Amino acid sequence: MTEKDTLAESINIQGDVVRKLKSASKPDKAKINEEVQKLLALKEKLKQLQLDDANGAGGGSAAPVEPGNRNLSLKTAKGTRDYGPEAMALRQRVLEQVIRVFRKHGAETIDTPVFELKEVLTGKYGEDSKLIYDLKDQGGEILALRYDLTVPFARYVGMGNVFNIKRYHIAKVYRRDNPQITRGRYREFYQCDFDIAGTYDPMLPDAECVKVVAEILTELGVGDFVVKLNHRKLLDGMFEACGVSADKFRTACSSVDKLDKTPWDEVRREMIDEKGLDEATVDRIGEYVRLHGGAELVDRLAQDERLSRIKGAMEGLEDMRLLLQYCQILQVADRVSFDLSLARGLDYYTGVIYEAVLQGTDAGDEIAVGSVAGGGRYDNLVGMFNPKRKQVPCVGVSIGVERIFSILEAKAAGKTRTNETEVYVASAHKGLHLKRLEILNTLWSAGIKAEHSYKLNPKLLAQLQHCEEYQIPFAIVLGDGELSRGVVKLREIVTRKEEEVALDALVDEIRKRLVA
Amino acid sequence: MTEKDTLAESINIQGDVVRKLKSASKPDKAKINEEVQKLLALKEKLKQLQLDDANGAGGGSAAPVEPGNRNLSLKTAKGTRDYGPEAMALRQRVLEQVIRVFRKHGAETIDTPVFELKEVLTGKYGEDSKLIYDLKDQGGEILALRYDLTVPFARYVGMGNVFNIKRYHIAKVYRRDNPQITRGRYREFYQCDFDIAGTYDPMLPDAECVKVVAEILTELGVGDFVVKLNHRKLLDGMFEACGVSADKFRTACSSVDKLDKTPWDEVRREMIDEKGLDEATVDRIGEYVRLHGGAELVDRLAQDERLSRIKGAMEGLEDMRLLLQYCQILQVADRVSFDLSLARGLDYYTGVIYEAVLQGTDAGDEIAVGSVAGGGRYDNLVGMFNPKRKQVPCVGVSIGVERIFSILEAKAAGKTRTNETEVYVASAHKGLHLKRLEILNTLWSAGIKAEHSYKLNPKLLAQLQHCEEYQIPFAIVLGDGELSRGVVKLREIVTRKEEEVALDALVDEIRKRLVA
Repeated sequence: MTEKDTLAESINIQGDVVRKLKSASKPDKAKINEEVQKLLALKEKLKQLQLDDANGAGGGSAAPVEPGNRNLSLKTAKGTRDYGPEAMALRQRVLEQVIRVFRKHGAETIDTPVFELKEVLTGKYGEDSKLIYDLKDQGGEILALRYDLTVPFARYVGMGNVFNIKRYHIAKVYRRDNPQITRGRYREFYQCDFDIAGTYDPMLPDAECVKVVAEILTELGVGDFVVKLNHRKLLDGMFEACGVSADKFRTACSSVDKLDKTPWDEVRREMIDEKGLDEATVDRIGEYVRLHGGAELVDRLAQDERLSRIKGAMEGLEDMRLLLQYCQILQVADRVSFDLSLARGLDYYTGVIYEAVLQGTDAGDEIAVGSVAGGGRYDNLVGMFNPKRKQVPCVGVSIGVERIFSILEAKAAGKTRTNETEVYVASAHKGLHLKRLEILNTLWSAGIKAEHSYKLNPKLLAQLQHCEEYQIPFAIVLGDGELSRGVVKLREIVTRKEEEVALDALVDEIRKRLVA
Repeated sequence: MTEKDTLAESINIQGDVVRKLKSASKPDKAKINEEVQKLLALKEKLKQLQLDDANGAGGGSAAPVEPGNRNLSLKTAKGTRDYGPEAMALRQRVLEQVIRVFRKHGAETIDTPVFELKEVLTGKYGEDSKLIYDLKDQGGEILALRYDLTVPFARYVGMGNVFNIKRYHIAKVYRRDNPQITRGRYREFYQCDFDIAGTYDPMLPDAECVKVVAEILTELGVGDFVVKLNHRKLLDGMFEACGVSADKFRTACSSVDKLDKTPWDEVRREMIDEKGLDEATVDRIGEYVRLHGGAELVDRLAQDERLSRIKGAMEGLEDMRLLLQYCQILQVADRVSFDLSLARGLDYYTGVIYEAVLQGTDAGDEIAVGSVAGGGRYDNLVGMFNPKRKQVPCVGVSIGVERIFSILEAKAAGKTRTNETEVYVASAHKGLHLKRLEILNTLWSAGIKAEHSYKLNPKLLAQLQHCEEYQIPFAIVLGDGELSRGVVKLREIVTRKEEEVALDALVDEIRKRLVA
């Protein structure tokens, strides 16, 4: 009997319970309600199971289960996976490169707990709040797993009365989303955030964020990309100029946000049919959102009859002008595009917004990539967490490192090294394990990365195969003959060249070869 | 000025006193120690005050809340805290050192999700299972936060049909324990695990685990330590020899486990009154558990009349003999102590067990330290997670890195660098921000870590103070006079020496000074 069969049966039984209660001569409403909730929970669970089956991709990674072990599900939680040594080697290399750029720009790092009081997260993510993982109330505080790193950062800055900080934070965040495993989207994933908090002059920190994104994407070699730029004040001004009422700015914004994946006609229809904007308004918006370019577009919009009447729009444009000038000096002008269709979903942005998108099909068609970094200015978030409601303006970017992992994983055809062992200490024949330990100890004391077989008498061939499999560059091969003369064989694994080295010169010889 | 403000100021002043003493040409160790104690006492007092604000003992870190903002609790979850740049700088340095040792021994790394299906964790932690954080049932699977890294590792090995792996895993684990903040014990904390899974010859992997612990503790400089060793088979054999029935081995074990904190008399009483063992049996146990030593103790126990009749005890002793021999060769014999009172709480150990304990009061009395690493052999855990119930023997150690952080934090009285900026680009007067960006861009392109003020016209003094505060070694000072001659001033922050450098030689000059 499968889990689904069991559930279906439980639903039948529970249905009976509810029906019986309802048909009682004096129905107990509270009791009925309680049992209905149980029934609904069972149904929801069945739906979930069916969903999992339907798209196959939904589950966590799993092992095939033998009949004898049915009592324990051999899988990770839905939408999560383990990362083995090869995946981790790639991930660590990528994260190191990202951190190197963050540090090149003078960033410090901080860390916050994986869970927050639920109320800290409430009301920050709009409709997506339903994706937050709640912890069970076990008789203490009401907690939830972090959904991003921005809100915990704002809490840190506000709560700690920090007035300026440039920090990066690399950590996992959690979203009960429908996992799209084939597109590399999981429920547990890394974010790499770089933010500058402090009261500064316009666009100086903002421009540095663009530079940081451009440096990272260039260094990682993910292919050609463009950083789209826009400004929330300009967007709102554009909506106002087109005749959208202020209370509909955000909802119009979320329609425009779909333009990277949805054709204009569809977005147009949504704005008219669902959002209730009138056709003329929407068509005016349509004229603007197809515009993109550089400094010349700023000039053109500054002359725009409708826009130039809107104060906010002109402020946004002045920011854009300055930002593009700074991008020029920082030599990223050819990487950016001022794009009026960029909107970004989150509510808390108040100024410049960014989104980096890969160009072309460099990454291969099998991975649908899209945006690989995004961010913007949020000047009104920290105050929510400050005891005196004091605001600290912030701007930042988040690198979509999971997508980058997927791209680089697909590119990395060759086997990645998973350990850093420099020398493998092997025995040519039986009875040499004590000598191996002695030599290993000498190597470790000298800081040389070394290992051996944990078998007393391993076969030489097996030991050398281990070196090849793990791409260990050198092996020392011990044999009684050589040892009696105070030497060992030092073997270069790739070339299979062997050379005798005196035991007391071994460390120096290995060091010499390792730097070569 | 609040009490906390006053304290904070006293801490600053006392910090200066300590730094001054330390930087003296002939530092007076006793005097320094005395002043450090005062500093620690002040810091402890401040921490306590902050805790009191956060709703009494056990609260997370908190900010004082103004009446206008009462709707939102400004705190982290109970038993958790944020880590600011200074704490993180120290933590990263320590973790890097730990990883370096793991890698020196050829370990790869893996990662597993922060939550597991609840059933994976069920029945693994005995009484402590009540400390597991459950996630709310939101209509999907029943999940819980990981409690340690060992069970997820065993699941990874079993589920993935892995037959041998040497891996390290550094990640946070979660326990709804009563947080003892003053002792540095939190509900969210790091574990650093090193494990060797595979079917190998006796004690070769086990001895390497001892070596790894000894190397890490030595390199971190936490003071004198001893690695206590014992063996579960020997323990059980000892209980049998003393007259404990097999069903009471584990409960007797957990009494003996308390001997590191509790005097024998109390443990004795517990075994008699609560565990129902008879007096003669307990007194025989008492004779054994006071024994500790080296190879000579193995010989003595091998002759022991009662023990020598117990097969398991003799097998355990043979393991210990071999382990001590290998420790001798790996030059850690002076760091280990074969100690019959070592029991370890967890049920899953099946062979050798370890525990590293700090000796002396090097770390100061204010931090109760105790065990800083522990582990052992667990040969029967992986099979629970394998579809065919196949076992893979494992042995491993876990470094108690949070305690090590606390010790090293207390020792590091001087300010830790929190960023890695090499050069600060400063303006001597107004109107130079574009030139600053241009020079920054050149430095960044050359891979030099550089930053500047995000203000258009910052004061020179403020810029130089920033360099001192963040211990940035060099500043470039721009001025129209120098720029017109194609030069800038390069200033060494500590000595305040300035020198003119041609703009086109700037990168080379900085590189030269950075390696010097």
